[in-house]
Amino acid sequence: MFLDQTYLFTPGPTPIPNRVNAAMAQPMIGHRSPDFSVLIEDVANRLKPVFGTKHPVLALTSSGTSALEAAVVNTVSEGEDAVVIVAGSFGDRLATIAENYGVNVHRLNIEWGKSCTPEQLEAFLDGLASTSVKAVFATFNETSTGVLNPIGALGEVVARKSDALFVVDGVSCIGGVPVDMEKDHIDILVTSSQKALMLPPGLAFVAFSDRGLKAIRECPAKRFYLDLNRYVKAYEEQKSTPFTPAVSLIAGAKEVCSMIEEEGWENVIKRHYLLRDMLRAGIRELGLPLLTSDEDASPTVTAVKSGNIPAPDIQKALKKDFAITIAGGQKDLKGKIFRIGHMGYCTPFDILKVLTALELTLAKFGEEPKLGAAVKKAEEVWVQHV
Amino acid sequence: MFLDQTYLFTPGPTPIPNRVNAAMAQPMIGHRSPDFSVLIEDVANRLKPVFGTKHPVLALTSSGTSALEAAVVNTVSEGEDAVVIVAGSFGDRLATIAENYGVNVHRLNIEWGKSCTPEQLEAFLDGLASTSVKAVFATFNETSTGVLNPIGALGEVVARKSDALFVVDGVSCIGGVPVDMEKDHIDILVTSSQKALMLPPGLAFVAFSDRGLKAIRECPAKRFYLDLNRYVKAYEEQKSTPFTPAVSLIAGAKEVCSMIEEEGWENVIKRHYLLRDMLRAGIRELGLPLLTSDEDASPTVTAVKSGNIPAPDIQKALKKDFAITIAGGQKDLKGKIFRIGHMGYCTPFDILKVLTALELTLAKFGEEPKLGAAVKKAEEVWVQHV
Repeated sequence: MFLDQTYLFTPGPTPIPNRVNAAMAQPMIGHRSPDFSVLIEDVANRLKPVFGTKHPVLALTSSGTSALEAAVVNTVSEGEDAVVIVAGSFGDRLATIAENYGVNVHRLNIEWGKSCTPEQLEAFLDGLASTSVKAVFATFNETSTGVLNPIGALGEVVARKSDALFVVDGVSCIGGVPVDMEKDHIDILVTSSQKALMLPPGLAFVAFSDRGLKAIRECPAKRFYLDLNRYVKAYEEQKSTPFTPAVSLIAGAKEVCSMIEEEGWENVIKRHYLLRDMLRAGIRELGLPLLTSDEDASPTVTAVKSGNIPAPDIQKALKKDFAITIAGGQKDLKGKIFRIGHMGYCTPFDILKVLTALELTLAKFGEEPKLGAAVKKAEEVWVQHV
Repeated sequence: MFLDQTYLFTPGPTPIPNRVNAAMAQPMIGHRSPDFSVLIEDVANRLKPVFGTKHPVLALTSSGTSALEAAVVNTVSEGEDAVVIVAGSFGDRLATIAENYGVNVHRLNIEWGKSCTPEQLEAFLDGLASTSVKAVFATFNETSTGVLNPIGALGEVVARKSDALFVVDGVSCIGGVPVDMEKDHIDILVTSSQKALMLPPGLAFVAFSDRGLKAIRECPAKRFYLDLNRYVKAYEEQKSTPFTPAVSLIAGAKEVCSMIEEEGWENVIKRHYLLRDMLRAGIRELGLPLLTSDEDASPTVTAVKSGNIPAPDIQKALKKDFAITIAGGQKDLKGKIFRIGHMGYCTPFDILKVLTALELTLAKFGEEPKLGAAVKKAEEVWVQHV
């Protein structure tokens, strides 16, 4: 078939809309030009609702991990205490980064595939009552397991039980879930471009509260490229960036803002939950076990456990027969699950596509044929939203 | 006139070829896919001649400053001694980054607009004979002044007079100048995508010698996103990157490699020197003073001092009347010079374009009209190469 007809269902990178590609291919502009200042101010303001913040959202030219590193090195320093909620490989990465910089990390380990409950966090903080915890780090959406943590409830616990900053890795959900930094008590919220924000990888975004901004300003940790003070200062004083930004990706971000506004931010969120619910209904119909409970289920990525057929075999067959790319498991879950991303430029038809391919694949592997069955279940969910 | 007919002559970002834009707009692929491994290996190998190295060239998702920071935090640690040649604002930035991390920086200050001679470096190192210098940092092409430092001669001095690593910021010239890391005794060589490499900003490239690689491996400095060990390991073991890379920019880099190979790497270099010589001949004809001597002149960026008309006024007029963007001076040179970038996707016709605009602009400001005169001088240079 057409070799350019490929279907990307990884939990990032995600497909790029044509109009975003077109925006990125406009003539390059200088990053010290008035045109660029207009562009970056536009994007910084129009992303506010997506991050649930009143402050402009700043862009770093780098990928998600550097956003996590920025969240660490702008809030905690060597020798200070921090709590990191670890419920999967990205929580682990946050903890590893902080440990790398000599922070005293207290890991709140949660079983992979489950969310962190407010009660668990409260008990953990109680156990650290005699420690001065500078910051609590949480992964909003654990990409490795498809779990959405109850970030508002966790933020409430942090605010009630401690003076710690609440720093949130929103990498694989911001742009697909509701968030309100003030209500959710979030001080720093970071994400990257290649997930729900419909852009290629290469940009990280940072939002902050008044308190988060104060912490950034006062943090003595050594950093240069990831020193958020420099980004705040360049933006406030010159509507600019401290270092050469990924101009074309920021031009793409402007187009993404238009797309979100045209669809309506509330509708964007609803779409992501619809995609999740359609996919889960279809997967259940196929008899494949879901890794997470409905309560914990992420609206942007779904993890499916191996049934009779090993998950990696399904992953390979989808790639070979249908040019569909999904993701496997990471670390402890390697070989045990496959993960389907459904965020950003993803529609209900795309969910039907991946379910159809799964129906055909299971039949090919000798399972009892259920052609059309998963699609039917997904449509039954969809019809309630049409 | 056509609003999309804009002319970018800044020393980065530079114009993007249409075919590179098209390559970047191909369907997004997963960064953990075999397709991506093929892509990154292809780029890593095909960039070798451009960096004058036998090792694969690694890509970081970030801009030029982070490449400088990577060069620092992977070679020197807090409390160690390093020499930084400072002949402009980018040498100053290198020194500032190293100082930020607690390195004992010995600044070899050179008058802005002049190159660092091997004799100056040798005398400076002699003065530090009792100090154990871990690394000497040099800016290959000082973007702020349009000076190309004699990097091979400087490398020879470093190798002869010390055990120090020779770490080179090649940001605004790699892709337009000849370099041979072995002959030039360079241990680490970094650049970014948006200069002579014809890509949008967002990628940094790092090349290293055997000795550079050993230094990276042994460096105890704290870093995470910019830890080059992670990049080397991910490439060697899996033909991958440790963190999500800017996939679309790397797809663009592959197309750039094709363009360089089609033109021929030797011809690419010759073109850059031709562009420089044409521009300087034209500027001289207009009676505008050049900042640098012919010996020091960069093949990628040319700085012109204010004559009767202030440089910023010329810069503004080019923008307003011709949609031509050039750059101004930085720090001490602010308001005193303008800078014209001529690297990457730039042809002799582009040089005639900017000279024509200067002829018209000077006439508009009341100077004795020299319409066609600078173009003629530039053509006289060109004709010798046709």
